[in-house]
Amino acid sequence: MTRVAIIGAAGYAGTELTRLVLAHPRLELVAVTSASEAGKRVSDIYPALAGCDLVYAEPEAAGIAGVAEIAFLAVPHTAALAIVPTLAEAGLVVIDASADFRLKDPVVYAAWYGTPHTAPALLGEAVYGLPELWRNAIPGARLVACPGCYPTATLLAAAPAVEAGIVISDRVIVDAKSGVSGAGRSATPGTHFIAVNESVVAYKVASHRHTPEIAQGLADLGLAHPRVAFAPHLVPMSRGLLATVYLEVEPGTDIDEVRALYAARYAGEPFVTVHEAERMPATAEVRGSNRAHIGVALDEPSGTLIVTCAIDNLVKGTSGQAVQCANIVLGLPETMGLDQPVPVI
Amino acid sequence: MTRVAIIGAAGYAGTELTRLVLAHPRLELVAVTSASEAGKRVSDIYPALAGCDLVYAEPEAAGIAGVAEIAFLAVPHTAALAIVPTLAEAGLVVIDASADFRLKDPVVYAAWYGTPHTAPALLGEAVYGLPELWRNAIPGARLVACPGCYPTATLLAAAPAVEAGIVISDRVIVDAKSGVSGAGRSATPGTHFIAVNESVVAYKVASHRHTPEIAQGLADLGLAHPRVAFAPHLVPMSRGLLATVYLEVEPGTDIDEVRALYAARYAGEPFVTVHEAERMPATAEVRGSNRAHIGVALDEPSGTLIVTCAIDNLVKGTSGQAVQCANIVLGLPETMGLDQPVPVI
Amino acid sequence: MTRVAIIGAAGYAGTELTRLVLAHPRLELVAVTSASEAGKRVSDIYPALAGCDLVYAEPEAAGIAGVAEIAFLAVPHTAALAIVPTLAEAGLVVIDASADFRLKDPVVYAAWYGTPHTAPALLGEAVYGLPELWRNAIPGARLVACPGCYPTATLLAAAPAVEAGIVISDRVIVDAKSGVSGAGRSATPGTHFIAVNESVVAYKVASHRHTPEIAQGLADLGLAHPRVAFAPHLVPMSRGLLATVYLEVEPGTDIDEVRALYAARYAGEPFVTVHEAERMPATAEVRGSNRAHIGVALDEPSGTLIVTCAIDNLVKGTSGQAVQCANIVLGLPETMGLDQPVPVI
Amino acid sequence: MTRVAIIGAAGYAGTELTRLVLAHPRLELVAVTSASEAGKRVSDIYPALAGCDLVYAEPEAAGIAGVAEIAFLAVPHTAALAIVPTLAEAGLVVIDASADFRLKDPVVYAAWYGTPHTAPALLGEAVYGLPELWRNAIPGARLVACPGCYPTATLLAAAPAVEAGIVISDRVIVDAKSGVSGAGRSATPGTHFIAVNESVVAYKVASHRHTPEIAQGLADLGLAHPRVAFAPHLVPMSRGLLATVYLEVEPGTDIDEVRALYAARYAGEPFVTVHEAERMPATAEVRGSNRAHIGVALDEPSGTLIVTCAIDNLVKGTSGQAVQCANIVLGLPETMGLDQPVPVI
Repeated sequence: MTRVAIIGAAGYAGTELTRLVLAHPRLELVAVTSASEAGKRVSDIYPALAGCDLVYAEPEAAGIAGVAEIAFLAVPHTAALAIVPTLAEAGLVVIDASADFRLKDPVVYAAWYGTPHTAPALLGEAVYGLPELWRNAIPGARLVACPGCYPTATLLAAAPAVEAGIVISDRVIVDAKSGVSGAGRSATPGTHFIAVNESVVAYKVASHRHTPEIAQGLADLGLAHPRVAFAPHLVPMSRGLLATVYLEVEPGTDIDEVRALYAARYAGEPFVTVHEAERMPATAEVRGSNRAHIGVALDEPSGTLIVTCAIDNLVKGTSGQAVQCANIVLGLPETMGLDQPVPVI
Repeated sequence: MTRVAIIGAAGYAGTELTRLVLAHPRLELVAVTSASEAGKRVSDIYPALAGCDLVYAEPEAAGIAGVAEIAFLAVPHTAALAIVPTLAEAGLVVIDASADFRLKDPVVYAAWYGTPHTAPALLGEAVYGLPELWRNAIPGARLVACPGCYPTATLLAAAPAVEAGIVISDRVIVDAKSGVSGAGRSATPGTHFIAVNESVVAYKVASHRHTPEIAQGLADLGLAHPRVAFAPHLVPMSRGLLATVYLEVEPGTDIDEVRALYAARYAGEPFVTVHEAERMPATAEVRGSNRAHIGVALDEPSGTLIVTCAIDNLVKGTSGQAVQCANIVLGLPETMGLDQPVPVI
Repeated sequence: MTRVAIIGAAGYAGTELTRLVLAHPRLELVAVTSASEAGKRVSDIYPALAGCDLVYAEPEAAGIAGVAEIAFLAVPHTAALAIVPTLAEAGLVVIDASADFRLKDPVVYAAWYGTPHTAPALLGEAVYGLPELWRNAIPGARLVACPGCYPTATLLAAAPAVEAGIVISDRVIVDAKSGVSGAGRSATPGTHFIAVNESVVAYKVASHRHTPEIAQGLADLGLAHPRVAFAPHLVPMSRGLLATVYLEVEPGTDIDEVRALYAARYAGEPFVTVHEAERMPATAEVRGSNRAHIGVALDEPSGTLIVTCAIDNLVKGTSGQAVQCANIVLGLPETMGLDQPVPVI
Repeated sequence: MTRVAIIGAAGYAGTELTRLVLAHPRLELVAVTSASEAGKRVSDIYPALAGCDLVYAEPEAAGIAGVAEIAFLAVPHTAALAIVPTLAEAGLVVIDASADFRLKDPVVYAAWYGTPHTAPALLGEAVYGLPELWRNAIPGARLVACPGCYPTATLLAAAPAVEAGIVISDRVIVDAKSGVSGAGRSATPGTHFIAVNESVVAYKVASHRHTPEIAQGLADLGLAHPRVAFAPHLVPMSRGLLATVYLEVEPGTDIDEVRALYAARYAGEPFVTVHEAERMPATAEVRGSNRAHIGVALDEPSGTLIVTCAIDNLVKGTSGQAVQCANIVLGLPETMGLDQPVPVI
């Protein structure tokens, strides 16, 4: 058993991490921290996590270092800057589901996050934790920066086409739809039930912080100088994320061949399904699971490949992916703790 | 008072037409038809329409011709082909909220609707009823083909940029999100509460029948040979529609100038609001009203103008627009019966 | 035209009052106040109220007195205590949709609201504004205390049986279900979308402040010493309220006779419908309207009459009822401004 | 490993049974049947059950008998009448989540289900599978009739008070609220998203088939001649059930003592939590789990104990309870396969 700490364990992503670690046969949860719930018992705050008698500690990295071998982080952006170096220095494996070590270029980080990156030395060490696309970098890593929810769905949707070289424009349109849990646990006018219910709205259009991360990923996949027009939307549901990605392809592209390409690309992937012709994935299909479901269509007149990818933003989009990465780092079967069936509804 | 009949009055669009006509100071509802509810009283089926003691008749055009001066149609596609000629011949003004007379080219109609157009002569007479864009054609028209919900939102979003000539590519991406009422009143596996709730899914990607209608409209606005990649999505809400339109513009385009362009274009329009910088419209803002709210953003690196337009699919997307067109045809104030305030939530 | 001010106009009830007054043919809205939105234009905050160019003022009663003839109040409990005397002294008619003048006994008020009643003299003058049950008291009133949403639905459900003397126990069970708007506009952990969505929960069981108001009403209807066990519940919807009322009746009671009794009691009422056998009202039926729909059933073995009453908590439960009372006070037709058809969905 | 068949495996309850059996360390799913999905692969119909390659067979009991040792039934009422005898004769343990063997008196069954009971001999053998209340009957049983969802929540809510003898009236009021999955997978006007969304409605008031089952259970708990007034309600959510139970108790009853009584009664129960004072359970707390959470309040003036019990209708209300019973029958730890943490949201 590997001893695990979760930093920022009381937010939505943190509770999912808690659930997944508790159910994992080879991980032992030994510490949880939370600024907002410090001093309270996990199962008192979250009856769904019945059986977890741990008490939330203050999120000080120092205490964690002594008790855990691996730490999962689910903290707000910029918060990990102070925590990760301490943990890394203490020799812990860090699986960071936060934003601070995803962008490789500290200048880009500073531009999008509005603050200098205070641990640039660690950026070189960090590997980007999207196993289906960059699995080889993960075994033995000391610091894994897990992708954001939008980049995960977008890059999985775009990768087979980009890698195959059939994308003929560096201009990529990403229209994404997310449930409210992506906005976090804070009660704000924007998360009030009545603001969300029966409404759809775009937000942070062309200014969302996941934009450079998507561009970085597309470049790594082989698309030169990608320019990403990204519009995230909030939809009235608690969980789930759908990315609809529009890629320009050669005239005369055959959709059946593209679909075969996608199917072949993900054939061995335990968590990815490419749907058959005419079928597009619903986010409900993947609710609660670490799966990504992909549908592919082609608009022939405009030469536009339209790919939708559905994930659960709190599992494959955050916490499940973190556990998947931890499995790889630790040399465990990649699906361990992530392969239980989930409710159909 | 002008005597009005509504054909197909018991569907969602039909009930909204009923509501709006009942509240209209210069229209008198004299007949309603419904295949499914024939013989039943309106207020018995729909308590919300309390006060309407009309009984649904069978949807035979013949009977209508004698009693009404103007007929609104809200019937499934292809059904209007048989009804409109009879009504037109009898001298009624026809405001058709159905699909059959929107496309000007019967060959395109046949290709997308899978059946020949049986009244092509009337296509020449039909005017496209989107007043904000083609108002001049409507006064005195005998047959108004009101746009579909997706084309309404999309064309309102695209028009100022296209008209101004700042769109530099004929390739237009439209990603739209609709509430379930767009799918109609039939109980199907796809409209079951549990299928819709907590899920987002794309459907009819690159194959939705509103695609050629959008292309036709963009061409009329001045975009040569538009190619429209269109992906509609179903979101878990009853009403509301958001179109997110991606237009390629010149490098160096200034977003403030574009926003000013939009504001100027719609300055005199009673039903259109262009939001200020950083604000995108939520569909909840326009719920129950005939309004269209528009937000404009620019992704500079990719030269992509991103415009979102929120409407209520059953009002500005169908029934309200039909009444707006009827007002124009009849020489009434365009906002008559459509300007009452609506609930904020 | 009668000049109207709305105090507390930016909350949910206040916006509904604003909507209804704007649409009313004989009321002219001249002033709106709001502590939270003071200085802002109504139509800027609420696009759905497009056309209302009034600016929210600070909620000081003094200024209102000079400009309006009638004032509607939609303020939090205890806030009306300071406002109403000023307005009354200035000669305004006050229609109070708040809680402070509903309970006739200041001792009961103090016990349930945790503060002494500071204007007990006005309690004697206040009439309880539930027209269907106590219409005669309203014409010419200077201060109308409109019932809470729960008492409105409960008393309408219970009245015919109580008045007819068929209720044989003073113990009345009220189980009510409300949408979230009843909890107000504040963003709290309890109104967060994710807390509300996909959940039902009881709250303030046996301690809700509407309990003594229900008891007072039942006593006025003729039930001696009523004891009310009241459990309100929060359900995941924005608007709507269903009260399920359990009344003990004589063995051998005939449900058809009871239903006939209900139908007869409300036969002349423009806003009340008693459903036929086997049909129970859904809150969606009355969404956006001032209507109350009632269904009646009997559990024979236990001698329990089970009555459900559906209202829109923001219309018949608050703002619509306030306008209905104003109409009566002013000698206008009772349904004026409240009889427009509303959307079916 | 015990070989398991699930009869009626493609409905909502059936898919939950499938999920739970697949995750169970000592059960091996060897056969699934479904009339509607026969011939199709489980994972094709339900991607959430990825990993299950079984193909739905026609629901003929004969084939099952040869391959499985234990059969779970999740079929519509009356359907089990024909299936259970065949399975029982073949020596299988039958865990019946259907309705047909819950009522001990075939006369009562015939009265409520509208058809004679065709296997009355097996009624004597059937044990009622609500472990927290009647655990002792279950070990070694050959036929377990698992309770309905409403009786489960109601009886858990009422039991401690009834057993302790503090309930002084045989008249019990049960007001219950259920998510839509309780209505099954069929697409009907009543399960259409738009019918359910933003609405609450009572149904089958005083006529629901769970009424006699609740009465039978209360009698078994010691309440003489119980008379149950039962009003179920449909609320707009997919899963979850809340029963609010009103019990008349002695004047002077102390709520703290009652709460202590409840806490003591369920102290050893792994799946039941009694909340502290002032806290009522939300159905979201138990979503996806086999737990039942209980809150207790007292209305002193009316001497009414108000108990709410939240369960997931598809887990503790059906499938989880079936697995719990199977564990007991088979001599396995009662929580096996049911104790994994579930998502907090």
